[in-house]
Amino acid sequence: MRDQATPGCYNPLVATTPASTSAMSGAAREELASIVGSRHALTRPEDLTLYEYDGGVDKARPEMVVFPSSAEQVSQLVRAAARHGLPITGRGAGTGLSGGAIPRRGGLMIAFARMNRILEIDLPNERMRVQPGVVNLEMSNAVARERFFYAPDPSSQRACTIGGNVAENAGGPHTLAYGVTTNHVTGVEMVLANGEIVRTGGMATDAPGYDLTGLFTGSEGTMALITEVTVRLMRMPEAVKTILVIFDSATSCGRAVSGITARAITPVAVEMLDGVMLRMVEEATRAGFPMDAEAVLLIELEGLREQVEEQAGQIREVCGECGAREFRIARSAEERDLLWKGRKNAFGAVGRVSPFYYVQDGVVPRTKIPAALEFIRETSARFGLTISNIFHAGDGNLHPIILFDMRKPGDLEKAQHAGEAILEFCISAGGSITGEHGVGMEKMELMAQQFPPDSLGMMAALKRLFDPDCLLNPAKVLPTGRGCVEIRQRPLSAATEI
Amino acid sequence: MRDQATPGCYNPLVATTPASTSAMSGAAREELASIVGSRHALTRPEDLTLYEYDGGVDKARPEMVVFPSSAEQVSQLVRAAARHGLPITGRGAGTGLSGGAIPRRGGLMIAFARMNRILEIDLPNERMRVQPGVVNLEMSNAVARERFFYAPDPSSQRACTIGGNVAENAGGPHTLAYGVTTNHVTGVEMVLANGEIVRTGGMATDAPGYDLTGLFTGSEGTMALITEVTVRLMRMPEAVKTILVIFDSATSCGRAVSGITARAITPVAVEMLDGVMLRMVEEATRAGFPMDAEAVLLIELEGLREQVEEQAGQIREVCGECGAREFRIARSAEERDLLWKGRKNAFGAVGRVSPFYYVQDGVVPRTKIPAALEFIRETSARFGLTISNIFHAGDGNLHPIILFDMRKPGDLEKAQHAGEAILEFCISAGGSITGEHGVGMEKMELMAQQFPPDSLGMMAALKRLFDPDCLLNPAKVLPTGRGCVEIRQRPLSAATEI
Repeated sequence: MRDQATPGCYNPLVATTPASTSAMSGAAREELASIVGSRHALTRPEDLTLYEYDGGVDKARPEMVVFPSSAEQVSQLVRAAARHGLPITGRGAGTGLSGGAIPRRGGLMIAFARMNRILEIDLPNERMRVQPGVVNLEMSNAVARERFFYAPDPSSQRACTIGGNVAENAGGPHTLAYGVTTNHVTGVEMVLANGEIVRTGGMATDAPGYDLTGLFTGSEGTMALITEVTVRLMRMPEAVKTILVIFDSATSCGRAVSGITARAITPVAVEMLDGVMLRMVEEATRAGFPMDAEAVLLIELEGLREQVEEQAGQIREVCGECGAREFRIARSAEERDLLWKGRKNAFGAVGRVSPFYYVQDGVVPRTKIPAALEFIRETSARFGLTISNIFHAGDGNLHPIILFDMRKPGDLEKAQHAGEAILEFCISAGGSITGEHGVGMEKMELMAQQFPPDSLGMMAALKRLFDPDCLLNPAKVLPTGRGCVEIRQRPLSAATEI
Repeated sequence: MRDQATPGCYNPLVATTPASTSAMSGAAREELASIVGSRHALTRPEDLTLYEYDGGVDKARPEMVVFPSSAEQVSQLVRAAARHGLPITGRGAGTGLSGGAIPRRGGLMIAFARMNRILEIDLPNERMRVQPGVVNLEMSNAVARERFFYAPDPSSQRACTIGGNVAENAGGPHTLAYGVTTNHVTGVEMVLANGEIVRTGGMATDAPGYDLTGLFTGSEGTMALITEVTVRLMRMPEAVKTILVIFDSATSCGRAVSGITARAITPVAVEMLDGVMLRMVEEATRAGFPMDAEAVLLIELEGLREQVEEQAGQIREVCGECGAREFRIARSAEERDLLWKGRKNAFGAVGRVSPFYYVQDGVVPRTKIPAALEFIRETSARFGLTISNIFHAGDGNLHPIILFDMRKPGDLEKAQHAGEAILEFCISAGGSITGEHGVGMEKMELMAQQFPPDSLGMMAALKRLFDPDCLLNPAKVLPTGRGCVEIRQRPLSAATEI
């Protein structure tokens, strides 16, 4: 489960990465430009600057950015780059939060902005075939009149593209009910490290043989470049109800989440914002969040009209028992949109208050949410940093936002250490170092804490299999020492350890 | 999506496989027996006979069957077998329909009957950790009092085991609403071909990094042996309604399925039985199916009471418009169980009428169901064989059952050709050669029609990566020529074709 942030709400850009290791020759530059046409290639430093960051905290500059218009061009680019030994990094809208689109080793960046067409809409079979540069929300908009939608809805859905969503296995607030990207992708076309164009899956929900589509979804551009995606569309529900519940205590709020689960009520989204967060959101959006509360829940119900009414009643009851101060149901589509606007622009709201912040993303089993909140409070005190919380409470996916001041020496490092401490807590609680944002370069070292060596060895073996020369998005996902250099020395066989 | 049949409803057992190619030495036999204890090892021909078939049409005899009690024993067995160059085939309950548990090359069979304990139940986080030999239905029974259940429900759920379900990525009638096994497995422990015990995934719905759990689910025992599974549990719905709708024409019935979909009604199961099928079922089960109808739909609705009521009303309306003869709602749990008994024992019912039959399993896009039924009718006429239909209409998963007479020379071959023709139709319609039963040995040659060479090459490369000596369930899934011999000669690198 990975999310991508709204662009424009950038975190401080810190060049924590090693210098580029590639050096592109003039001949290589010319050959690559000739594939896409020189109009669709950038090489001037001032142009490249725009492509050295994503929504995360790291940056690195590509040596060249190209904008292909077809899988065939992508294939030619990959073959040419491989011949010249150049690293290749794919890029969608650059809204990722874990550095997935940062070209750590320089080289060639393949940006999918021109491959932005919807290729086929098949409503009777509930499928849509799109190019990777199609914006997430555009897919839903294209079928809204027929009352269909594409389910995974990252906060950045107005900007992020489906290619990046597939690479990062993006989630969103409605993950609770609908699952993440991998649950909605039935087939992909991709270009492998050897330039081959391959199709996996298709229209059917599950394909025979090994699940290649599932393997490449969420592989963060390290094993292939996605050039086409077939997604499942869903029917819009008859009724939607959005509810804001206000609490004077975060503990009561946490109890209400447990209470809703225990009663087997199944909202499609349960978002929690703490007091710090919601004051920032309210100041930015005027969505009607209370300024003095300690926590709110934003709950969405979907289904048939009667079902939604009944569930809303049950939730009101549970929240009342847990001491909720107020229970508001959005009375119109406008009120509903306003509440979601508050949630989906949360990062922008933080940016207004603190120019520097660091968004974390971790998962704990749902029952460990109160303990995690307590740990975050302690961490905040220990490091002397304000940490606000906004999270997908329904599935235990936390997003602590750590505020700091870049101008204070050592503050950034404190923020990063605080973030790391929270993720270590998530691992120890039986959870995960990423719910939605991907591993990228941000969390690759923590993978060694998340997984035992044998699991990492298997992942490294897969990376080596599909990208033996380590050209695709190098120095991502796998921890140092499990990367390309080491795995070449570790053949997988019945006789040796993986 | 794969299903497994009820044991006891066996198809004719035909030795279409090549003779065993392994020859187990006395020393190997002794070493293997010493790992599990001689009480838990079978080597006498009369004992081995029981393990030479599954629910499909093929058979082959293992040279030895062992019953380990732990992952450690499985690991030791795999290491020992590898040392002696012996093929290894895992076996759950032997209910599979595509020959997945048939030891084609002889060698060692590892049966998981003794590893049948539920290890952990974590209701607040909706998880259960089990050994591979736990029977599918037992998982639901263990948490039924607390109103939870495990969703994938193959027809064989009273016998089939979770290890086999994971290997085959089993489905069932409720796949329509809940998805297949891979959507419900969050982690596995497995023994690799080199004897290593590896864990992937865990409690969280999605794990960071490459999706190893998803890759091994549905790999049909060809890349690892599953020794533990963590599954997601679900809450029982407040209300369940089971409806039988009777039609005088199969076309009307097909139109009703489309109509239900078009209205965005979402039943958890939509099963269709044709006239031939339902007469056989009725004679066997006395479930109350009409003897003179041309088709029936068995529809199940779940949710809140009001929601289920409203949906039932809508379905009644659609079916009425499509000319349904009768619309029956089960009035009690007993009536409901009786209707499902009819469906789930369908294969047994066929066995009463015709001692020889061949169950097929293919998928077409939902909109191609009428064309597929027409093609099956033509195929039936062309080959002069009775073909009855029972299928998961909601997701286009067909199960034509081809009746034939083993004693008539050439009849078996006709049945197999008819089955193949139907699967070829499925491929040409944009569907798939297996919905639920797996590829196994039955459909491995058809994989070459389903997939282009590059996709098959990628699958072969994965097989080679995890089982370089081709000891795990050899000669399955991948077509001849894509198997172990060939792939050793095809290293995957940027320079060569996969």
